[in-house]
Amino acid sequence: MKVLLAVLAVGLASLHAKAESPVSTVTPAMTATAHQLLDLARQGNQGYELVRSLTTEVGPRLAGTEAEARARYWAVEKLQALGLQNVHVEPFQVPVWLRGVELAEIVSPFPQSLTIAALGGSSSTGEQGLEAEVVVFNSLSALQQAPRMQVEGKIVFIDEVMARSRDGSGYGSAVQKRRETAYVSQKMGAVAALIRSVGTSSHRFAHAGQMRQANTGGDLGVPTAALAAPDADQLTRALGYGKPVTVKLVITPQLLPRAVSGNVIGEIVGREAPQEIVLVGAHLDSWDLGTGAVDDGAGIGVVLGAAKLIIDQLPQGPRRTIRVVLFGAEEVGTVGAKAYALEHSAELPDHIIATESDFGAGDIWRFDSRINEQKVLQLAAIAKVLEPLGIASGNNTARGGPDLKYLREAGVPIVSLLQDGQDYFDFHHTADDTFDKIAPHALDQNVAAYAVFLYLVAETTADFRETTQDLTNIN
Amino acid sequence: MKVLLAVLAVGLASLHAKAESPVSTVTPAMTATAHQLLDLARQGNQGYELVRSLTTEVGPRLAGTEAEARARYWAVEKLQALGLQNVHVEPFQVPVWLRGVELAEIVSPFPQSLTIAALGGSSSTGEQGLEAEVVVFNSLSALQQAPRMQVEGKIVFIDEVMARSRDGSGYGSAVQKRRETAYVSQKMGAVAALIRSVGTSSHRFAHAGQMRQANTGGDLGVPTAALAAPDADQLTRALGYGKPVTVKLVITPQLLPRAVSGNVIGEIVGREAPQEIVLVGAHLDSWDLGTGAVDDGAGIGVVLGAAKLIIDQLPQGPRRTIRVVLFGAEEVGTVGAKAYALEHSAELPDHIIATESDFGAGDIWRFDSRINEQKVLQLAAIAKVLEPLGIASGNNTARGGPDLKYLREAGVPIVSLLQDGQDYFDFHHTADDTFDKIAPHALDQNVAAYAVFLYLVAETTADFRETTQDLTNIN
Repeated sequence: MKVLLAVLAVGLASLHAKAESPVSTVTPAMTATAHQLLDLARQGNQGYELVRSLTTEVGPRLAGTEAEARARYWAVEKLQALGLQNVHVEPFQVPVWLRGVELAEIVSPFPQSLTIAALGGSSSTGEQGLEAEVVVFNSLSALQQAPRMQVEGKIVFIDEVMARSRDGSGYGSAVQKRRETAYVSQKMGAVAALIRSVGTSSHRFAHAGQMRQANTGGDLGVPTAALAAPDADQLTRALGYGKPVTVKLVITPQLLPRAVSGNVIGEIVGREAPQEIVLVGAHLDSWDLGTGAVDDGAGIGVVLGAAKLIIDQLPQGPRRTIRVVLFGAEEVGTVGAKAYALEHSAELPDHIIATESDFGAGDIWRFDSRINEQKVLQLAAIAKVLEPLGIASGNNTARGGPDLKYLREAGVPIVSLLQDGQDYFDFHHTADDTFDKIAPHALDQNVAAYAVFLYLVAETTADFRETTQDLTNIN
Repeated sequence: MKVLLAVLAVGLASLHAKAESPVSTVTPAMTATAHQLLDLARQGNQGYELVRSLTTEVGPRLAGTEAEARARYWAVEKLQALGLQNVHVEPFQVPVWLRGVELAEIVSPFPQSLTIAALGGSSSTGEQGLEAEVVVFNSLSALQQAPRMQVEGKIVFIDEVMARSRDGSGYGSAVQKRRETAYVSQKMGAVAALIRSVGTSSHRFAHAGQMRQANTGGDLGVPTAALAAPDADQLTRALGYGKPVTVKLVITPQLLPRAVSGNVIGEIVGREAPQEIVLVGAHLDSWDLGTGAVDDGAGIGVVLGAAKLIIDQLPQGPRRTIRVVLFGAEEVGTVGAKAYALEHSAELPDHIIATESDFGAGDIWRFDSRINEQKVLQLAAIAKVLEPLGIASGNNTARGGPDLKYLREAGVPIVSLLQDGQDYFDFHHTADDTFDKIAPHALDQNVAAYAVFLYLVAETTADFRETTQDLTNIN
């Protein structure tokens, strides 16, 4: 408790809050049940087997493809088999970008092939490809500041290295490079662009991922691909000789008319307050190169493993409804997240809290929230129960998973159970994102944390929403 | 010295040798020079930069291709620049097998692509490819013992895992699988074959490598490819459902008429006994998927780095000739090694000792030999000087590098400076064999060991050949 209070004191002090009477968000009976659940989860659960099943039986499942549709069938069947209620698909439309031929080679002075992956949404070079001299910049902003004549007619190469960190904080600026390079390069007269892969792996995998969606009506950006780290190194070394380096690039992706994607939803209907919703998400789609094990098969396994424990092991279901949302089309711009927020807009005020597992399969080490500062102490009582799992209290500026964006913006309270992401970006969005990269014991710890968290939030009488009428819940 | 004597005692006892007078293979003056050389090598040498240069400027260099020819130009230029004498190419003919399209996918029950690399020498499926049910065996011998009806019309899958070890001892049986599966499968009526990649990496790289050369006139073996480890896992999981698993395979390699390869040779001509040859080798060709950094750019760097130190740092060149042989076409069946042995057959009795660096860039940790047991003690005096580098005495059953095969069989004394190969087969023959995988400090240790070893063997009056007249060298 000391650690929690120390952390929370900062936020509370700034609100000039007095030390109120003790919070009873979690009753002794609930704590006892939570501990039982925690022990059971650690003794074994279905999370790991569910990841195995999804990544084997479906494999890669790019949004809008037939493979993603198979993932939805898989999900509906599993949710029903696990005992969730109201299982259904909420379909929506999504554009489909399909990878084509991908070839890159240094033509001169040192002929050899390079390992690439076209960025999601990239335009095509045509089957003939294109050949041009390379001009290198160490960041997107360096490109933006360069004189146009230095760039015109060339292939831009952004050689920025992403930093490794536990919380994945290096990803933000790396993604900026991925999102914008095609458009900035086009504006400056380049014919194509290459970026050093977003990611932290030194292995020869190029990192896929979505560019900013092109503006409708024009401006598609130049053909743009990511180079595997060793290939970015190689191109940099070649450029280091001070002679012009010419690269040939052939990428022939296609953008198809809108296709069907969908969110798969199931519930553990609340026994007393079924209209009050605790939302737990993960996303069903993946990038096309790997089998989507760490991103986000792991999240699917964690969320479903936790739901299964709650269904099977509690003497009675929780007070509130736990709604499991397996989002579609996350990777191509959180399209499923938007569809959910629109479809359920009237219901958003009934969302007590939302959380998502979408950061791989590392141990959860921190509990962050984003709720009214006055509710932080109530929530701390729940975080406290997770301490035996090695989970410390963090801050109240959680962003939640990517699929919580629209809920967060609508004011739904958010909790992030932060995973250790030291090696997440070694695998994320690459061909190497496969089932063997998941450590069973870490997945079990995640399932335990989610099961206990979901149970407590769904069982407590405490409310975490912006409204104040729930203050009666504080004894 | 105690350690060395303890090890050597076994061999000596079995020869009923008496404790002779002390060996003076290495004089105090030579030891002093060796220590200077060792210090200089560790302070910095050109080995690492040479690997960088070769892997950047040439990159992949498959035997018989234009890229291997560029590697020969590179080598001639470097040997001359480093100050070697008699620099020349000894050309020979080699068959060229060129990789074509490579696609594999599980068609049913779980459609998804698989990462493969056709094995060197594999026949083609034709552009249409082929599709058949998979039958799995856990070893080549399990396949050999299976009833033909179990295999006929199917795609054989050998799912044998290679063991990781310091000395690479798991490679032998793994290579057997790579060499023979295509032919055994054909004999048993299969239509194609897949093997779990030879190698120890869990990353999604398929491992290239040569099959046994097909018999002339027929019997080409079925089209055969290696699956990356995660893909072998995936196929095994799919088979675990107990339903038939169908795979489609398209590989379209071509076998071209014989092309030119060659060995590149340079010498540090001996000042007193130029006709006596100390041979040090490495191989210039590489597989086509990576840039041949650990295999065998590292060896090239080590050997040339050591030669450069000897040329630059010694007050006078050694007594004997040090002959650097950069073999061509090692990967496709040690074709350059055979060409050398044939070309220099008359000269083989003048080879005092031969050694090769072809096991990556790990630290050298052991000194093995293959010489007349009566000469072991003489050689031990040289091994002794390498002890400060952390190199222990090993045994007298060295095999040397693969390019020493024919010399070894002809009775040329062999020394192996064994490298730590724990992670060698994580990179070897894969696309991930790139320059970043080389640790500079380990390469420096290798250069130091080779420089000192070559200097001492070329300077000593001791002889290590089978003949006995050189016993006069023992005081």
